[in-house]
Amino acid sequence: MIHTIRWIDDSIRIIDQTLLPEKEVYLNISNIDELTEAIVKLKVRGAPALGVAGAYGMVLGINEIIKQKSADFNQKIVELEKRLIDCRPTAVNLKWGVSRIKKVVEQNRHLQTNEIMEKSLAEAHSILDQDIQKCVAIGKNGSALIESNYSILTHCNTGGLATGGFGTALGVIMTAYHQKKSIHVYVDETRPLWQGARLTSWELKREGIGHTVIADNMAGHLMYKKKVDCVLVGADRIAKNGDTANKIGTYSLAVLSAHHGIPFYVAAPTSTIDHRTQDGSDIIIEERDPKEITHVSGKRITPEGVNVYNPAFDITPGNLITAIITEQTIYRGPHYNFVDFN
Amino acid sequence: MIHTIRWIDDSIRIIDQTLLPEKEVYLNISNIDELTEAIVKLKVRGAPALGVAGAYGMVLGINEIIKQKSADFNQKIVELEKRLIDCRPTAVNLKWGVSRIKKVVEQNRHLQTNEIMEKSLAEAHSILDQDIQKCVAIGKNGSALIESNYSILTHCNTGGLATGGFGTALGVIMTAYHQKKSIHVYVDETRPLWQGARLTSWELKREGIGHTVIADNMAGHLMYKKKVDCVLVGADRIAKNGDTANKIGTYSLAVLSAHHGIPFYVAAPTSTIDHRTQDGSDIIIEERDPKEITHVSGKRITPEGVNVYNPAFDITPGNLITAIITEQTIYRGPHYNFVDFN
Repeated sequence: MIHTIRWIDDSIRIIDQTLLPEKEVYLNISNIDELTEAIVKLKVRGAPALGVAGAYGMVLGINEIIKQKSADFNQKIVELEKRLIDCRPTAVNLKWGVSRIKKVVEQNRHLQTNEIMEKSLAEAHSILDQDIQKCVAIGKNGSALIESNYSILTHCNTGGLATGGFGTALGVIMTAYHQKKSIHVYVDETRPLWQGARLTSWELKREGIGHTVIADNMAGHLMYKKKVDCVLVGADRIAKNGDTANKIGTYSLAVLSAHHGIPFYVAAPTSTIDHRTQDGSDIIIEERDPKEITHVSGKRITPEGVNVYNPAFDITPGNLITAIITEQTIYRGPHYNFVDFN
Repeated sequence: MIHTIRWIDDSIRIIDQTLLPEKEVYLNISNIDELTEAIVKLKVRGAPALGVAGAYGMVLGINEIIKQKSADFNQKIVELEKRLIDCRPTAVNLKWGVSRIKKVVEQNRHLQTNEIMEKSLAEAHSILDQDIQKCVAIGKNGSALIESNYSILTHCNTGGLATGGFGTALGVIMTAYHQKKSIHVYVDETRPLWQGARLTSWELKREGIGHTVIADNMAGHLMYKKKVDCVLVGADRIAKNGDTANKIGTYSLAVLSAHHGIPFYVAAPTSTIDHRTQDGSDIIIEERDPKEITHVSGKRITPEGVNVYNPAFDITPGNLITAIITEQTIYRGPHYNFVDFN
């Protein structure tokens, strides 16, 4: 278990993921400005972790609003909600975590602000606890799909760092490993921000699970050489029809998996399923700073002034997904009929 | 035209491709040790350019052997040949360039060593001249496949830098552009060594051709969004059945192209076709230093001691290639019946 995000002394404590694997540094975030900066700069990241960050962020914000003794409490809450959600438009969990706290606020408007604050904090704690429980359940459900001697290809980071501490797709891998299944993991380095090379590799090493880091463009070649038994990824938003937004590069892996007849699994809590989004075309894809492509470790690699396209996510059609693993059940593709548990 | 590799004052002058796009530095290479180091470190790279480098390398080596006045001239030539070819095992052009000079040596054994040297140098010059002419012809042949308003996706560097100065796949793009076709180029950054981000982007900028650099894992998403009209790549070795070894990541692009019904073109001189290689399984894939994956700009990005797989090339089956563009003709897939022009 990684203590990715915790509430300590009226602050949010996070592990700074931009400094891993070189340094394990924890940050105490005590105001909304610092939190939004941490979210935008990916110091905290991963859809389920963003759900928790959104919830604790609301608590932090409510605390600030109370201290300011503003007359317009309700208006300030609306502004706070928008500010947090706008940090990362694609992951639905951020919005989901924020909304759960907002609902608590609305239901308890008749109470004193400090009581609202207490109830909000209790709800945020419960979101974190539930996240861990859900991830453990995802791990158990998903592990049933992993056979011994499997080589599993994964993309981006879906481990403890991407969640409250246990992981989704990487949680499935960890569960299979602790069930004594002999497995090997191929880790896509995951350009442009190296979440695979930096974070997934760090988590797997910490756990002692054998793995090999590859450049993203090597995945097809590995499949061609029959070195991959299944692909396992997370999700940032799943539409009603199963179309899944996830880290850029996921879609290519799904097409490659289909071509090679390799099962392609998505692991995510049901909170990632957005029942108001009909299909992938409704999902906003966040585009990020071109510098993530033009510069590496502060050094420019492209010629100056070059044009860049840098979407953070892509959409994988539901019909290319073999199954979506949730804490409740495994949904088998190509057609999905999700139950709304929220 | 880029003066990628030229023979000047008994030396090989190359542009140091490891320093681009930041610095345009030319190196004068006057002995075999320096040349093999330059080839292994990719200061000079690209299959056709390696053909020229192999030829001039033989001339450099013959010059050294003559100066040493070794008794065993023939044995030294055999050693020289092996030393050059072993620098990069996948690209057939290196071997081809070396062999052409060796043949000249063998045919002129009855002559004085300085005469052998002169004839070898003339042959190497002719290889360079022919390379440029062939690339111009490839450009013309291939441009017939490019329509105005095409967006073309390319991988690695196949321009002047990869050849004697004109380019193969990028030569086709340049030709289409100079024929006033309105085109846009998507450039895969090409991990791990950024030949796209660094070199192709540098060449396109120099020529004034509009282009956008993307991470390799974004190509599928671009195709999904119908932003790509065709894919155009080079080749390091083409087997008799059309199976093509090219920069790692090429195979994934071919599978993605097939999935989206996008034409996938390979452009290469006929010297890249290895008539003694029956299919892709006979091609040795060079594996390179793990540091190319674990480190970027001298900084480690993965945890220490992580396991890495770093193949420099992959094999694209001939049946995934729409057409192979050569200086002689365009061979249409999926079945190839190459003429041996060598």
